[in-house]
Amino acid sequence: MSALSVTVWNEGVHETTQPEIAAIYPDGIHGAIADGLAGLLDGARIRTATLADPEHGLSEDVLADTDVLLWWGHIAHDQVADDVVERVRRHVLGGMGLIVLHSGHFSKIFIRLLGTTCSLAWRNEAEREVVWTVAPTHPIAHGIEQPIVIDHQEMYGEFFDIPKPDDLVFISSFAGGEVFRSGVTFTRGRGKIFYFSPGDQEYPVYFHPQVRRVLANGVRWAAPVAGERREPEVTNPSADWFAR
Amino acid sequence: MSALSVTVWNEGVHETTQPEIAAIYPDGIHGAIADGLAGLLDGARIRTATLADPEHGLSEDVLADTDVLLWWGHIAHDQVADDVVERVRRHVLGGMGLIVLHSGHFSKIFIRLLGTTCSLAWRNEAEREVVWTVAPTHPIAHGIEQPIVIDHQEMYGEFFDIPKPDDLVFISSFAGGEVFRSGVTFTRGRGKIFYFSPGDQEYPVYFHPQVRRVLANGVRWAAPVAGERREPEVTNPSADWFAR
Amino acid sequence: MSALSVTVWNEGVHETTQPEIAAIYPDGIHGAIADGLAGLLDGARIRTATLADPEHGLSEDVLADTDVLLWWGHIAHDQVADDVVERVRRHVLGGMGLIVLHSGHFSKIFIRLLGTTCSLAWRNEAEREVVWTVAPTHPIAHGIEQPIVIDHQEMYGEFFDIPKPDDLVFISSFAGGEVFRSGVTFTRGRGKIFYFSPGDQEYPVYFHPQVRRVLANGVRWAAPVAGERREPEVTNPSADWFAR
Amino acid sequence: MSALSVTVWNEGVHETTQPEIAAIYPDGIHGAIADGLAGLLDGARIRTATLADPEHGLSEDVLADTDVLLWWGHIAHDQVADDVVERVRRHVLGGMGLIVLHSGHFSKIFIRLLGTTCSLAWRNEAEREVVWTVAPTHPIAHGIEQPIVIDHQEMYGEFFDIPKPDDLVFISSFAGGEVFRSGVTFTRGRGKIFYFSPGDQEYPVYFHPQVRRVLANGVRWAAPVAGERREPEVTNPSADWFAR
Repeated sequence: MSALSVTVWNEGVHETTQPEIAAIYPDGIHGAIADGLAGLLDGARIRTATLADPEHGLSEDVLADTDVLLWWGHIAHDQVADDVVERVRRHVLGGMGLIVLHSGHFSKIFIRLLGTTCSLAWRNEAEREVVWTVAPTHPIAHGIEQPIVIDHQEMYGEFFDIPKPDDLVFISSFAGGEVFRSGVTFTRGRGKIFYFSPGDQEYPVYFHPQVRRVLANGVRWAAPVAGERREPEVTNPSADWFAR
Repeated sequence: MSALSVTVWNEGVHETTQPEIAAIYPDGIHGAIADGLAGLLDGARIRTATLADPEHGLSEDVLADTDVLLWWGHIAHDQVADDVVERVRRHVLGGMGLIVLHSGHFSKIFIRLLGTTCSLAWRNEAEREVVWTVAPTHPIAHGIEQPIVIDHQEMYGEFFDIPKPDDLVFISSFAGGEVFRSGVTFTRGRGKIFYFSPGDQEYPVYFHPQVRRVLANGVRWAAPVAGERREPEVTNPSADWFAR
Repeated sequence: MSALSVTVWNEGVHETTQPEIAAIYPDGIHGAIADGLAGLLDGARIRTATLADPEHGLSEDVLADTDVLLWWGHIAHDQVADDVVERVRRHVLGGMGLIVLHSGHFSKIFIRLLGTTCSLAWRNEAEREVVWTVAPTHPIAHGIEQPIVIDHQEMYGEFFDIPKPDDLVFISSFAGGEVFRSGVTFTRGRGKIFYFSPGDQEYPVYFHPQVRRVLANGVRWAAPVAGERREPEVTNPSADWFAR
Repeated sequence: MSALSVTVWNEGVHETTQPEIAAIYPDGIHGAIADGLAGLLDGARIRTATLADPEHGLSEDVLADTDVLLWWGHIAHDQVADDVVERVRRHVLGGMGLIVLHSGHFSKIFIRLLGTTCSLAWRNEAEREVVWTVAPTHPIAHGIEQPIVIDHQEMYGEFFDIPKPDDLVFISSFAGGEVFRSGVTFTRGRGKIFYFSPGDQEYPVYFHPQVRRVLANGVRWAAPVAGERREPEVTNPSADWFAR
């Protein structure tokens, strides 16, 4: 089996314009995520890409060589070019895994693949988030502590307007009493999608050992089977085409 | 359409042996539930039954005349006769709706229909429970406040060992930080099942107007279509039996 | 309760350009569907709309007054204006029911709401389609014969590239041996969606009494609860906003 | 990782009492299944067990050493001892994988874990069964031909009275026009369950290369993660037990 190829995409705007965010994520949010994955996915090839790169770093060649794409965005969703979004969607439908993180719930690619508004309730008061596994046999929950405690996080609360997920893996509570379906999976075409909400630019969540483990599990789970990378398409078979 | 027929079953042991519980539920837990339903389900025929009744009040005649059965039990699960459990199961598979409440998660009938241990985490410290709707289009959520606040309740927490529900309608958080899938639906045979966790003998939860509304919605949702009451059975059709 | 308001949309191109299709559907496919619904939905207000109408007959006023929209399209999907598609999507997310029919699987609105390619296998050789109910307690299956036999139909076969449906109600087999998930439901935002595949322009499927009954059941099921028509949106509540 | 341990259970009555069945399966149905798995699961330890063995070959030691149990039964379901069924159930809830085959739909263990009648329609006329993948990204479908053609099989048809499956992987059609959800998955406790219907004692289905591949995929999918073998249980945590 060839090495797993992972691309971590981050808009990279907070870190380059707000010194206080750069202090939390000196290598960028993408750098922190990539570093966490590198420590847990032996032999994986991990690259990063950002909004400022040509084609946002997501050329046809890069995507064709990516098994799983992670997506972090927040204040620059509308600066992502529509043709890049369409290219990412095509690759997901063909089998590329996609992990959408935190404020990526409002990214063009997530809304395009899910079809809903993806809206939610939020409050940024550094509340404690407690993440509970409700599907202990799911590969993404493998080896994860019950619960994960994140001391300070932005609150994301229900109603979260997403389609009914294939699997609900994690539910979070917040100090203020809200709950959130914080780890959910979907399938679109041949592509597996995992949304995981913990991870805000103002808190060092992507350095949390358990969060890093969830993301590594997510990458393994979302990776396509080798050789099965193609978008579903219309066929017009003749009668008895499958008979011997 | 004939009137909806509802049977509220309660083991009725706490109220008859513990004065402090009888003070909270002077007409029994079943009495409080029946009273709540009567106020919201115009024209419904509502009866109650308890463990102490002959056949626990669940004779063949009663069940055949019941559209939806509500079930509350706690300390006397093992006193429920196996043949009554089997009779209830047969009626559920044939189309009778079943609403299992709170500690009924450990009732024989619930475990028999679900197949799992139905175990969970619990703590009785009068914590605040906040119940969030995560499926706003579900009939059981119709007209329910977002969220329902229950000032004092026993904590029920994950992992709740149930099969993946057909629909997840409510998720609760507790003051201590735990979460619970507090409103879930299942189908077994032709029967619709709703489990709703709020409602402990030590707290007056069944007098809460929103809880009462949830139960009334649950009864309407779980009621079978008239004339479709029969258990699925094996058939051995000849070839082309359906051709004209 | 006010009367149910239904809008049947049809591109209406086959019937106006191909005499042999007009002979099968002299009042248009929309006319046949509307006629079937009128006979089964007492008191409903049923209107029709087509591609050729101003704004395709789907103005803001019409959609705001529509409880459930049915959609039939085939050879003119790309002539449907994008702003009308976006308007329909907004109404679905806000609670309007949507029933997508047959070749509507490739309509802009269906792909936009589902996120997948919606591709499938097809073969037009007038094969017998047999439609089996696999969710007998679902409201859409109420009173439907097991199975529905359609003597001549276009074959639609798997793999059908849709997200995992909320509910799988019907599965069809075809004379050639293919199978198809022919009746599936989804939720997007507050809107309920039903896709039903039987119904091609070359066969009089929309006059079949059982097909008409399925569509009427679908309309009843997809209709929103009165007064709950709004798109989910972001909120930013303060801490303890729900406390008394 | 230690070697995968598989136990193939077969009642083994047809082969020992009917020469015409013994002619089809000279090493028993269990022998044919074990042979197929051995060829596809490198390094796996594969044993067989039958009804006639002491404790039906399913002692505590055997089950504790089994990662995945396959189950074939038909005419002797009621001869399986209840305590063995309960032992198997306990191991499934604790994480042992279970694959139930064909007429095993009426086994005590399947009904006990699912809760429904598990009834269906059947007809034994050597009809062609065509098995279609409807979840191409599911691990059980990996590398499987679309469709699998089985020239002669007993017909199993809908309505199949099972709970809504976690995943619907395969749907079959039969020459007579019936359809069947022939590959479905469930989770109970920590155990993963796969039901696969092709495989009757009168036809050499377990020698079919594609059927063998499905079973091998099923074993890999259902195997528990090492070290996670325990039944879910009740806990009574104190407040703030998870805080640092």
